[in-house]
Amino acid sequence: MEAKNKGKAAAAKAAVDNHVKTSQVVGIGSGSTIVFAVQRIAERVKDEGLSVICIPTSFQARQLIQENGLTLGSLDRNPKIDVAIDGADEVDKDMNCIKGGGACQTQEKIVASNAKEFYIIADISKQSKELGTTWKQGIPIEVIPSAYRPVQLTLEEMLGGQANLRMGVKKAGPVVTDNGNFVIDWQFQSLPKDWNKINQQIVLIPGVLDTGLFINMAKKAYFGREDGSLVEQTK
Amino acid sequence: MEAKNKGKAAAAKAAVDNHVKTSQVVGIGSGSTIVFAVQRIAERVKDEGLSVICIPTSFQARQLIQENGLTLGSLDRNPKIDVAIDGADEVDKDMNCIKGGGACQTQEKIVASNAKEFYIIADISKQSKELGTTWKQGIPIEVIPSAYRPVQLTLEEMLGGQANLRMGVKKAGPVVTDNGNFVIDWQFQSLPKDWNKINQQIVLIPGVLDTGLFINMAKKAYFGREDGSLVEQTK
Repeated sequence: MEAKNKGKAAAAKAAVDNHVKTSQVVGIGSGSTIVFAVQRIAERVKDEGLSVICIPTSFQARQLIQENGLTLGSLDRNPKIDVAIDGADEVDKDMNCIKGGGACQTQEKIVASNAKEFYIIADISKQSKELGTTWKQGIPIEVIPSAYRPVQLTLEEMLGGQANLRMGVKKAGPVVTDNGNFVIDWQFQSLPKDWNKINQQIVLIPGVLDTGLFINMAKKAYFGREDGSLVEQTK
Repeated sequence: MEAKNKGKAAAAKAAVDNHVKTSQVVGIGSGSTIVFAVQRIAERVKDEGLSVICIPTSFQARQLIQENGLTLGSLDRNPKIDVAIDGADEVDKDMNCIKGGGACQTQEKIVASNAKEFYIIADISKQSKELGTTWKQGIPIEVIPSAYRPVQLTLEEMLGGQANLRMGVKKAGPVVTDNGNFVIDWQFQSLPKDWNKINQQIVLIPGVLDTGLFINMAKKAYFGREDGSLVEQTK
């Protein structure tokens, strides 16, 4: 197993074992670490007869749920989620996160915001003292396609820095999200002091759907080290 | 001409004649009153050689621009708009509006928010002393389809009242917007005191794109009476 994967698997196992109980509705995040969480849930279904309904945060999550034989739910049938588990690109000491490297932040935030408890799982490299100091690719912002240019200009005028349209790889032109929208990665010039305010300012720009700033949402984070040991963090 | 149309045409003519100048980028709203504004712009192009670039707020606006032989622009080529003209479902004495009866509020707000000046045109029935007292169909809120149910629940828990998914006519199931999303019409229980705060609270719910509350955006409103006379209103 690749070194980082050992940490990811350990974090995923701890979160699933500590927080997922039978009969629950469970939000399934997106990204590479979530693969291990879904596998662990499937193991517990097989070994312990755990019975859960899984709510996906992306097409990737939906496929993982189905490939692992888990019960697929949806936000309209199961709008109240007991526990959501997701990865993150950066997590600070106050449990605030930057997410959206995989362009799924809007759906992830919908699921997390409707969960009674929200847990982060990640390899140790995602742990940060101060938000914005380790994830260098900018704050992901989902925008409706027609609005990308005025939103870029508004971001740069209002907040400074640079607002880049995320371009596709193996796809000409911009990345398109699972919702059919574009992503702007906003790179700040100087580290913001109040991320909550920044998030609100950005979300209120017409044409913006949501940002990858998850402020005051996560209850606990499990960071896995390369040797498989864990760092647990709460606020 | 139908009685209300005489008022709409008068309002449209006044706004176009007073505020649209040659070489400008002009935002074109949506709805029945806008038809008269586009026709008036086309008359001025023909009669005076007026030259403008028109930015649509909807598929309807785009078709109107093209059918009237006007120059179609776009927000990525022309992100800075000189003047935007749009209708409204209700306009209060402070020039705050409820819009979105036609489900175009998000694109309309993007265009209006990027315009140096934003003017409202409407028949006199849209004039209101206090926002929320004449438009009875609820505050239109565009949501991404997967999130409609949790957003309904959050609205009702957070703000009270009733959050209805807008259903299609001549279409099974919900109305789908030009952006491919759904519309929730939120009917409040008691008249809110601070519409700006209500708008911010709603926009910050994950899964919400934007609302039909246009707070502190319009510079002036032209209301047309059935006899073709006008009521002009500024803040």
